[in-house]
Formats: sequence, C-alpha cells, structure tokens
Amino acid sequence: MRAARGDFLSSAEAMRLAIAEAKKGFAHVSPNPLVGCVVLDSAGRLLSVGHHEKFGEAHAEVNAVKGLSTHELQGAQVFVTLEPCAHEGKTPSCAKMLAQLPIDQVVYGLEDPNPLVKGQGAAILKAAGITCLHYQEMATHDLKDELEELCEAFLWNFRHRGVFVALKVGCTLDSQLALSSGESKWITGEESRSEVHRLRASYDAVLVGSGTVLADDPRLDIRHPEIQKANLAVVIDPSGRLTSKRDQLALGQRELGKTLWIEGERDPAKILDRLWDEGIRSVMIEGGAQIASAFLAAGLINRLHLFRAPVLFGNQGRSFAEFFRVESMGERLTPRQIQTQNFGPDTYLTGLLRDPQTGVIYRGM
Amino acid sequence: MRAARGDFLSSAEAMRLAIAEAKKGFAHVSPNPLVGCVVLDSAGRLLSVGHHEKFGEAHAEVNAVKGLSTHELQGAQVFVTLEPCAHEGKTPSCAKMLAQLPIDQVVYGLEDPNPLVKGQGAAILKAAGITCLHYQEMATHDLKDELEELCEAFLWNFRHRGVFVALKVGCTLDSQLALSSGESKWITGEESRSEVHRLRASYDAVLVGSGTVLADDPRLDIRHPEIQKANLAVVIDPSGRLTSKRDQLALGQRELGKTLWIEGERDPAKILDRLWDEGIRSVMIEGGAQIASAFLAAGLINRLHLFRAPVLFGNQGRSFAEFFRVESMGERLTPRQIQTQNFGPDTYLTGLLRDPQTGVIYRGM
Repeated sequence: MRAARGDFLSSAEAMRLAIAEAKKGFAHVSPNPLVGCVVLDSAGRLLSVGHHEKFGEAHAEVNAVKGLSTHELQGAQVFVTLEPCAHEGKTPSCAKMLAQLPIDQVVYGLEDPNPLVKGQGAAILKAAGITCLHYQEMATHDLKDELEELCEAFLWNFRHRGVFVALKVGCTLDSQLALSSGESKWITGEESRSEVHRLRASYDAVLVGSGTVLADDPRLDIRHPEIQKANLAVVIDPSGRLTSKRDQLALGQRELGKTLWIEGERDPAKILDRLWDEGIRSVMIEGGAQIASAFLAAGLINRLHLFRAPVLFGNQGRSFAEFFRVESMGERLTPRQIQTQNFGPDTYLTGLLRDPQTGVIYRGM
Repeated sequence: MRAARGDFLSSAEAMRLAIAEAKKGFAHVSPNPLVGCVVLDSAGRLLSVGHHEKFGEAHAEVNAVKGLSTHELQGAQVFVTLEPCAHEGKTPSCAKMLAQLPIDQVVYGLEDPNPLVKGQGAAILKAAGITCLHYQEMATHDLKDELEELCEAFLWNFRHRGVFVALKVGCTLDSQLALSSGESKWITGEESRSEVHRLRASYDAVLVGSGTVLADDPRLDIRHPEIQKANLAVVIDPSGRLTSKRDQLALGQRELGKTLWIEGERDPAKILDRLWDEGIRSVMIEGGAQIASAFLAAGLINRLHLFRAPVLFGNQGRSFAEFFRVESMGERLTPRQIQTQNFGPDTYLTGLLRDPQTGVIYRGM
C-alpha cells in the first residue's frame, strides 16, 4: 500500500503499512523477527514509519519515533507488528522508551512468543497510562496470517526449537527441474530468478545436494542490485564425492567460511540439527530432486516456493518430487495459506506445508 | 467490463464490450464463430449490445440493432468483432442489413477469414456511404489476440481444414493426474470443475482414452446450472477392450448418438481426420496420460487448459505428460499468449501450443 505523511489511516491501513514497512528489513534482521512500526498523530494522520533494519541495531519503534517532536507525539497512536520488547537486550527496552512519550495508544500485532515475557511490554505501557491493545482483539480486519508470516522463522524457532525450512522449486508446467541430460539453464525467467535472489537473502542459508552441485555448479550467492549480502551455502554430500573437487567448484570460490560442507549425513532431521548447532535458524532448499524428496518425505518442509515457467519438457524423470510419493488421498500434502503471483511469464505459488503453531503436516482434505 | 446504456465508451471500450458480449454464445454457435456487436449513438453513448446466440439463428448485428428506432440509429457507430457477412447463408447478409440503416460508421475487429469474401462486407457498407474501418488499423489498443481467441476454432478450421484441439489437465502441484492406484476423485476443487463444464460446452466434443474410462467411468456430460446442452463424448479404444462393457459404463447410459466409440485407431492425426469427417470442428481432450502424451508428441494440441490444485502426491507415475518428452532445450514446448486465473483454491493457466496462423508448434525460446 502507498501512504504519504498527513494521510488519514484506519487501524487496518496503519497495521498493513507497518507490515509493509517491516518487510524492508528482510535481508538483515535474522535471527530477530521483521518488525515494522507506524505512528499516527492524535487526529489519525500518518506521521512516520520505521522498521528493524539490522540485527543488533535499533528496533522498529525507535526508528519510527526518532525525529518526531514532543508536540507531534502528543496524543499519537503507535502501530507495531510485534509487542514492544520489555527487556534490555542488545538495545534498550522499547516498551520503556515508548512509556516516556506523550502518546495515547499502542496497538501491536502479535504477542511476544516467549511465554515468560508475553504481556510484559503491554504492562509497562499500561502502567504509564498508555492504552495498549492487541490488534487481534480490536480489529475487524484479520491480519493474523500476514503478521505471523512476517516473523514465521522467528516464531518457529521459538515454538519448536528448530530450523525453519523452505523449499524453492523452479520447474516446468510438467514439474520437471531439468532435462534428463541434467541441463536446466534456464527454465524460469529473469523476473523469477531475481525474486529467488531476494528469497535467498531472507533465509540464513541455502542448501543443495551434491548432485545439483555436480550438474549445475551453482554459485548460490545473492546477485540482486538492491541487496548487499554474502549468504551462507550448505552442501549435503553424503558420499563425499565433492571432497577432492571443492577447489574447482564455483562454491569453492566463495568467501571463506561462507560454504558449509556436510559429508556422510543423509538424514534430513540430523542435517537440520547440525544447522541449528551452527546457528542457522532458517534455510531454503534449492534442490535437487533427491534432497527435495527426502525433506518432503520426512515432513520437514515448512514453506514451499514454487516458480513455474510456461514450458513443457515431458517426463524427463526429473520431477521436483521424483523420489517421494504418498500412498493414499488421506496422506496427500495439502499446503495452506496459498498465495500466487506472476513473475514475468512465470507463475509463482507459495504456501505452508506445516501448521506454524503445532508443526502438524497438512494432509488429506 | 461493465457498461450501462448511456455510458460514453471509447473505441477500445466498445470493442472490449463486443468481445465480452460475444462470449455469451459460447455453448451454441459452433461451427460458427462467436460474434458480439455494440451500438453507440452519434455522441458515443452506449445504445445496445447483441451477440450471435445460436447456430442458424440471427447474427450479432441483427440482435444488437433490433429494437432501436431510426431516430436512435441516426449517426450511430456499430462495433462488431468480425466483419459483417456479405452473403446470404442461413440468415440474410448483415452487411446489406446494416447498409440500409442511417448509421455513420462500422468498426469490425477481424476480417472474414475467407479470402474469397474478405472485404466484401466492408465494400457493401462503403458503397452505402457508411465509414467502415478495420479495428486493427485504427486502434491504439491492440485487441488482436483477444479477437482471434474468440473465434479460434472457426479460424483454425478455415485456415487449416482441421479440428481445433484443446487439452484439459486437472492435476496436482507435482503434475500428477491420479494416485498410482488410479484414484483421482477429486484433485481439483468445485470452482475448477464448474469451469471445466463450461469449457466442455465450448467445444464440439470431449475425448478420452479407454484407460480413463476404465479407471474413472466418467460421465463427461455438462453439469452446470446455466448450461443446457447434451455434448458429444469421443472414446478412443485402440484395443477394443471396452466393446463388451459399454452397456455397464456411465458413457453407455448417455443419450443415443452422443458417444462416439473409436476402436482400432491410435494415431492422433487419423483420429482427428475421423472427427473432421464426423462434423466435429473442435475437441477437448480430457485424458488420460496416454492420450495427452500421444497428442503432445504428435504436435496436435492447439490450446492447453491446465487446472492445478494446491496438493502434492509425489511421483505416482501419473504425470499428465508421463509418456512424452522432448530431447533438448530447443525442442521444449513453449506455449504463448499465457493467461492465468484462480478458481477457488486452484490455479488455472491457458496458452497456445501452436501458431494460429501457420500451425507451427511453439518450441525453444
């Protein structure tokens, strides 16, 4: 959505704007969540926006109110996608900072997922005489899914003490990743590939199998004009067939420490444990069919990113789910919260394969 | 688009409205083309619309002007998607009918595809002192693809003396038509299935292979609240395995003469010749993988209709293109004029696999 300073915004518009603002931090906040903040004046007109820009630096609330005068903040309303933090961490408590301002009201989108501190930010604000509301309680427009999606990896990490896993697929209309020869450059178009680079920046790491490395020798780095980030690549090489070749591979040319080689392990759950121990909180699997199928079969994919080019290869034995199958209608995977979009000539679909709260895999109906 | 009598319409808006109007005849005009007509008064305000409703009955122009007074028609502009017919057929010549009205201008979208009569409708109007323009020559908004799509089967029949062939697929995100057990009810949702019934009514016949009949025993009729039409079903049964079972099949219960059984033939081109001889001018193939793959391999599919449910089966050996494959990037099929839409939870994509003018199969880049 577009809004200019001085525009009157409804609560729903303000929260949507805060969500849009939060997304600007996508490449640099992990393992923190994306957070956005919007300040309206006492009459409901837009004063300012802010977002959490980088891990370890100022929170969204600080960025939103900085530069506003006491006069402007008199009776203001603050909309923030996540409950303001109660405690000092790398930065001071946002709830305490807001409590000192002459604002009237704070509306937050999601409660802090930590049961030990949930509600404490709100309590600090209320004690200071500021009305503090949970958006879900007041709103006629339900933004719960959008708010949760904004910090889905953070919430998953907290709730399940595990790595958030996305699977990215770029395939044909008949679901092939490549020709039987292995050739795959390029199936999807430029617009899709640009979006993939943006997605790479949203996750802590990308992950591929040794087969993909041998077939494509991918760089797996982020090549996007608006993103400056050296990402981490994880290569799963169960039989160690890349060991002697590493120096000749594009991946071998990457910045030191930016490629993690995992040998001798093919159990998806154990691979994720290893990533967790390495401090990786979210990962995007980029192929090939062996790895994708293994993680699908293990029920360990949280989110699917599916790019599809208007191209037909026929059956090359290279479906992205080639080595996975369900045995009955009741077992079929039925992703939810589906969103679709076009990127140039390609279509894109994303959805959740597991319940974000319980972790249950969506199946059957 | 929506427009009410009295609205001022631009030329592009008028032609778009004529296209929308034409589509209303989808179930009943074959082998005639869909045609729509819009009449604006001398000031450019919408007076009336009309379309060709049924084969053998009044043309769009007649339906659009009927009920309008001579006073209203004074200086009027007529927009029609196809050049008004010059000759008497089952109905009188539309060009001659329009030539007798006090209208100022006729704008037509496509020329008559018959080189023997092309331009003759326009000539009749010009001789009567009416300005007659081909929309492509005057318009800044190019509607050529939309206008051609409106009567694509008719144009194909005329240009190539062959049946127009559509392939309809209803599949999963991993392109499977069914579980390996054969179970397929239901992959796509209600909204998609309703659209399939509408598509069935748009073609002269639907076509399936004996494998699909044995697995699903489909009725293949049109079950849509707004469509009254008994359609024709074609069953390809190369080895005659349905011969003794016909009476027990749902297809065997259909209205007499509404199922065409083709035994002993598996060559797609010869099947189409047979359909042409039977008076069938357009057909929608509805499966299964054997038939779809054979027609894809033969390069005989004009249009793809691809419905995809947000479901994953994994590899069941039941991809819609299971028995077809290209050998190189240069051979890959690259459908054009792609359009996408959502039907309930499902995505839908349609596109052309062959050039409508030359018949060349779109491949490579």
